[in-house]
Amino acid sequence: MNIPVKRLAVLGSTGSIGQQTLDVVRALPERFRVVGLSAGTNIDLLTEQISEFKPEIVSCAMQDRTWITGAGCEVVLPENIATHPDVDIAVIATSGTAGLSPTLAAVKAGKNIALANKESLVAAGEIITGEAKRSGARILPVDSEHSAIWQCLNGERQEARRIILTASGGPFRDYSAAQMEEVTVEQALKHPSWQMGRKVTIDSATLMNKGLEVIEAHWLFNMPIDKIRVLVHPQSIIHSMVEFIDGSVKAQLSYPDMRLPIQYALSYPDRIANASLPCIDWSNLRSLTFEQPDPDRFPCLRLGIEAGKEGGTCPAVLVAADEVAVELFLSRRIRLVDIAQLIERVLEQHQTIAHPEIEEIMAADAWARDKVLKFVSGGN
Amino acid sequence: MNIPVKRLAVLGSTGSIGQQTLDVVRALPERFRVVGLSAGTNIDLLTEQISEFKPEIVSCAMQDRTWITGAGCEVVLPENIATHPDVDIAVIATSGTAGLSPTLAAVKAGKNIALANKESLVAAGEIITGEAKRSGARILPVDSEHSAIWQCLNGERQEARRIILTASGGPFRDYSAAQMEEVTVEQALKHPSWQMGRKVTIDSATLMNKGLEVIEAHWLFNMPIDKIRVLVHPQSIIHSMVEFIDGSVKAQLSYPDMRLPIQYALSYPDRIANASLPCIDWSNLRSLTFEQPDPDRFPCLRLGIEAGKEGGTCPAVLVAADEVAVELFLSRRIRLVDIAQLIERVLEQHQTIAHPEIEEIMAADAWARDKVLKFVSGGN
Repeated sequence: MNIPVKRLAVLGSTGSIGQQTLDVVRALPERFRVVGLSAGTNIDLLTEQISEFKPEIVSCAMQDRTWITGAGCEVVLPENIATHPDVDIAVIATSGTAGLSPTLAAVKAGKNIALANKESLVAAGEIITGEAKRSGARILPVDSEHSAIWQCLNGERQEARRIILTASGGPFRDYSAAQMEEVTVEQALKHPSWQMGRKVTIDSATLMNKGLEVIEAHWLFNMPIDKIRVLVHPQSIIHSMVEFIDGSVKAQLSYPDMRLPIQYALSYPDRIANASLPCIDWSNLRSLTFEQPDPDRFPCLRLGIEAGKEGGTCPAVLVAADEVAVELFLSRRIRLVDIAQLIERVLEQHQTIAHPEIEEIMAADAWARDKVLKFVSGGN
Repeated sequence: MNIPVKRLAVLGSTGSIGQQTLDVVRALPERFRVVGLSAGTNIDLLTEQISEFKPEIVSCAMQDRTWITGAGCEVVLPENIATHPDVDIAVIATSGTAGLSPTLAAVKAGKNIALANKESLVAAGEIITGEAKRSGARILPVDSEHSAIWQCLNGERQEARRIILTASGGPFRDYSAAQMEEVTVEQALKHPSWQMGRKVTIDSATLMNKGLEVIEAHWLFNMPIDKIRVLVHPQSIIHSMVEFIDGSVKAQLSYPDMRLPIQYALSYPDRIANASLPCIDWSNLRSLTFEQPDPDRFPCLRLGIEAGKEGGTCPAVLVAADEVAVELFLSRRIRLVDIAQLIERVLEQHQTIAHPEIEEIMAADAWARDKVLKFVSGGN
């Protein structure tokens, strides 16, 4: 059987998911080819990637790009990489709301996207899924939880009754409320089971990540927010579960390694053997445990679910306020517990627009960022 | 949407699986109708079932059947119930090798069967699956483990890499070899997680049941025996798992309740909402644990896997010897630990026929039964 090579654009190629996407391509050169790369300011790594994968088109946030054309690549905007006619799948692995513009451009152009950037779908889920429906673009989940749900739904003909989104619980799962007030940036960046980028690692420590994922699952699987339950599962082996109308539950399991969900998004509807991906060793895995999340110690989870239920511009405000608050925590200007308090204050002051245009989402985003900074500077 | 009612024949309707099949029909009268019932000697219950479900055709092992015709039903042979033109799915829920003849008749006739009787597939897997392939009959698994595997394979395009068959471990999971020598019939009939018939409960206590299920999975899913691993999981929540070529594992979970896999076999490829089926309560389920099975304390598991690998008439000998040995244990003529010893002696003396005809399987079956009885009477 002659299987056609899938041609990929990787946006955010120097980030954690971007690099792991290139690991998958490296392991399976007969199945995937990189035709486009897009990165921010990590020029050294981007140069290496260009030299190894020889893409046709490159995007970069730096001013001077003559070195890229010197390497034989065409320089384009991130939007143009995602929508380039030579691209079969655009992997959107940029961090934060920077992913929104290329995501929207890609789905409008009917391009299939492997979406690792949850912020864009959380902020503009109605618009993105609406455009994808119109254009026929497929949104292929990359987040391990959403990949798990997607794998469990595969082949099912009836709608699911419930999604059970698992959460590791992060590094502060067992911390008291008092201990939570004292945590350092270093402690928050040490995730017990996953190796990830800084933003998502902090979001995992506050459980905001899980709040965002509830909203993401809502849009990806057309599931009402109140049918999505969060379950703490510290081992991060079960990546999520789906309960069906007959009471049967399916779960997807693997060691925590993002290369698997990345590869599944790229290989779907097929699976590809990849010897570099680990298999679960059942002689060493003795127990999988489950706990209910504690909404008192992790108010970000509650804020995420509430913003998802409120809908409209609320999730965009949530995402933007969180992005700024996490930055402030990482630069040691606020405590970890202040993140939720800041976001809650911003959400309280927000006037929700029910079915916003993209410009209204952008405006809500800018307003929320500004608000967080004002609050931190002592304003109202 | 107008969904056609599926017309069922239930063979072994007064047994544990038969009764639970009728529970499913009772809960979903708009989806299923019973057109045929077949039972052994439990006339009281069969009479009740006839009165409630009003089948067109009935089979019964008793000599006097005038009461059946008196109830307005036609009396037929079990084979003729399974193959009756009015039957969409024949549920084969008879216990032991008595299931072989109607199973074979049904698949030869191209009739879809929901197969709860594992003995027939273990004894004559090559013939039954070959006939099903020729006739286009589907074999729909009812065993909870095989239903789980089937649900996990749903929608997958590549062959699985491995099947992980879970086992509760039975009531003697933690018993020492010395304690195993002393167990009573009453202890062996007390299964920690499943309510089942007597034969399968004893097979669960010796783990012979899991040996038979390995062979059953081999035939149902065309999977080499050495790619089927047994994993002890005492909570009986994960009913089995499938590992795919990319390292991803899917699992099916539910409380141990046979009505779910029965209903799935009947509703496939759809699922049907059924309020009488339980949902997992994740606030009360704290831990799922796993252990390796101990081949020294549970030699029946090893015998099952070895017989499966040897193939030919070996699995038929295994099934027949086990059936007689379990009867002898239940009638308190041998100890639980003698079951494996008897079966092993019989298997050692058996001359395997590699690709047997059905008559050769029947002959091996009769020979094995005779051998067990001879050994118990002190012969060779």
